[in-house]
Amino acid sequence: MNAISATIITIGDELLIGQTIDTNSAFIGQELNKAGVWLKRRIAVGDVRAEILGALEEQRRDNDILIITGGLGPTADDITKPALREYFGAGVRIDEEALQNVHDIFSRFGRSPSEVNLKQAEVPDSCTVLPNRRGTAPGMWFEKEGVVYVSLPGVPHEMKGLMTDSVLPKIRAHFTLPAIAHRTALTAGKGESDLAAHIAAFEEALPAWIKLAYLPSYGTVRLRLTGRGDDEATVNGELDRQFALLRGRVAEWLVADADISLTEAVHRALKSAGKTVGTTESCTGGYLARLLTEPAGASALFVGSVVAYANDIKEKVLGVPAEILRQHAEYFFL
Amino acid sequence: MNAISATIITIGDELLIGQTIDTNSAFIGQELNKAGVWLKRRIAVGDVRAEILGALEEQRRDNDILIITGGLGPTADDITKPALREYFGAGVRIDEEALQNVHDIFSRFGRSPSEVNLKQAEVPDSCTVLPNRRGTAPGMWFEKEGVVYVSLPGVPHEMKGLMTDSVLPKIRAHFTLPAIAHRTALTAGKGESDLAAHIAAFEEALPAWIKLAYLPSYGTVRLRLTGRGDDEATVNGELDRQFALLRGRVAEWLVADADISLTEAVHRALKSAGKTVGTTESCTGGYLARLLTEPAGASALFVGSVVAYANDIKEKVLGVPAEILRQHAEYFFL
Repeated sequence: MNAISATIITIGDELLIGQTIDTNSAFIGQELNKAGVWLKRRIAVGDVRAEILGALEEQRRDNDILIITGGLGPTADDITKPALREYFGAGVRIDEEALQNVHDIFSRFGRSPSEVNLKQAEVPDSCTVLPNRRGTAPGMWFEKEGVVYVSLPGVPHEMKGLMTDSVLPKIRAHFTLPAIAHRTALTAGKGESDLAAHIAAFEEALPAWIKLAYLPSYGTVRLRLTGRGDDEATVNGELDRQFALLRGRVAEWLVADADISLTEAVHRALKSAGKTVGTTESCTGGYLARLLTEPAGASALFVGSVVAYANDIKEKVLGVPAEILRQHAEYFFL
Repeated sequence: MNAISATIITIGDELLIGQTIDTNSAFIGQELNKAGVWLKRRIAVGDVRAEILGALEEQRRDNDILIITGGLGPTADDITKPALREYFGAGVRIDEEALQNVHDIFSRFGRSPSEVNLKQAEVPDSCTVLPNRRGTAPGMWFEKEGVVYVSLPGVPHEMKGLMTDSVLPKIRAHFTLPAIAHRTALTAGKGESDLAAHIAAFEEALPAWIKLAYLPSYGTVRLRLTGRGDDEATVNGELDRQFALLRGRVAEWLVADADISLTEAVHRALKSAGKTVGTTESCTGGYLARLLTEPAGASALFVGSVVAYANDIKEKVLGVPAEILRQHAEYFFL
């Protein structure tokens, strides 16, 4: 089996100090996985030259692909580009397409780019530029000693656009990838360890190339089967067979046989019952409405919500008797 | 200056495959930073014995503290504990307090722990157990060749409880820590690169031990000054002086001179003006209400919301003329 492995290196002090939560890595991990690339590690380092170079040097040994995000901004604390130049022993060139892109983006807002903005079009001369339509920092693709290095901006929607438009197609073209597939069951109402005990025999009987993972969160446990192999049809066939067995074993607690959220499962149930829903909320402050409107197509199912935070709204708008509000004081959850 | 550095190693395939977003590392990074520990790296590895052992072996060389989270569940895919036993060449012992804790937690729900649950009280014999009041997996503290290793469960509220109750006090007692301090300004209305050009002279004149970082997100840019030194009073004094200069330079776009969210800034403004707020929402689906009720003390400022998703609610409850709803069709945002 071809095992192509990747590591994500995220760059930025803000990731280490905890001011930014790294959602980029989750997206990249998901997309690589779907493409059949096994994510080996995820590493965050600060905006420190030696740390960036050290991470590249260490991780290239074990990986076919290194995906680097962050530190491409135009300000002095962003040092990824000079670090990459140093790492690859590269000179600088101006990329004409990237330069035009900076001008285009600024002219859309009726403004002229500053000198600092224009520097975004300077790239190491050994890279292939990946055009970024959503921002001024282009993506960069390097190859060295059989390893592919991809540098992407850290702004989530720019990174996502570049992954989808350029990086994933180039990775698929560059490597011969194995088949990776997943099947996920969403369960509710039984704890992780009880579920594990309940399906112990099933787990033991799984072939070595199929892995079962337990992913607990509040009130739910996801059970995920992951299979890897050379042949997509074989992988999917056996996964389907095992997943049918699993579903049967956990039928009592099964909410959905797909990797969806509890909210999406509620939507599916509403849709198949031909029902709509509205909410009245208090301490949840609109969160229930927010969750119910998150999945696409919410307008067909969700009508509206009254968020009654102040007591007189609970009384006047929702008709909760004043007596009940007094009795339950601040612990009154609608 | 005493530079005590730490690395976080998070364990779990779900982190690599992108099914779970790692919020734990942000919390740990913030707390270590406040305590004066510099977070050097954050590494995620899968539930793979060789990867876990490899990460420990590599990272111990550069660090004083390794914080390990995840992989302590009772199921077969959680292999952190056997990996730690192997790494430290340790035997197994039953920790009586942890065993009692498992019984206590189950008895609170009127249930008996299974054999699998009771195994949570088995720990490597060379560790100091950190009691976990919020779950069945105890924290573990190891010391080896001058490096401290801390293993914590990955469930966020259990991890946070252990950090606050045990890990941070023990780290403060174990190491002589340098002073680290931050000052953050929240700005809105001017892009990152324009701000950078505007305060370039300020940034250049900063002493070498004070760093300026730009943290952009939708509509806002945070400017963070970080100072490190031996003496807390000196660090804070100079940071205050520099922060006053910075505030003056960005006064026009300054929303808050603290590390707060835009919502918290709105709350502060409402409070100082003696006003309350209510919202009517459509496509935002209660999100505005949710944001406004997030900060503590929201009940004094937020009254309620009508989330009108269906058109007839916009018309009947909010009194939007039908003519306007027709004209603007689906692009009608309240």
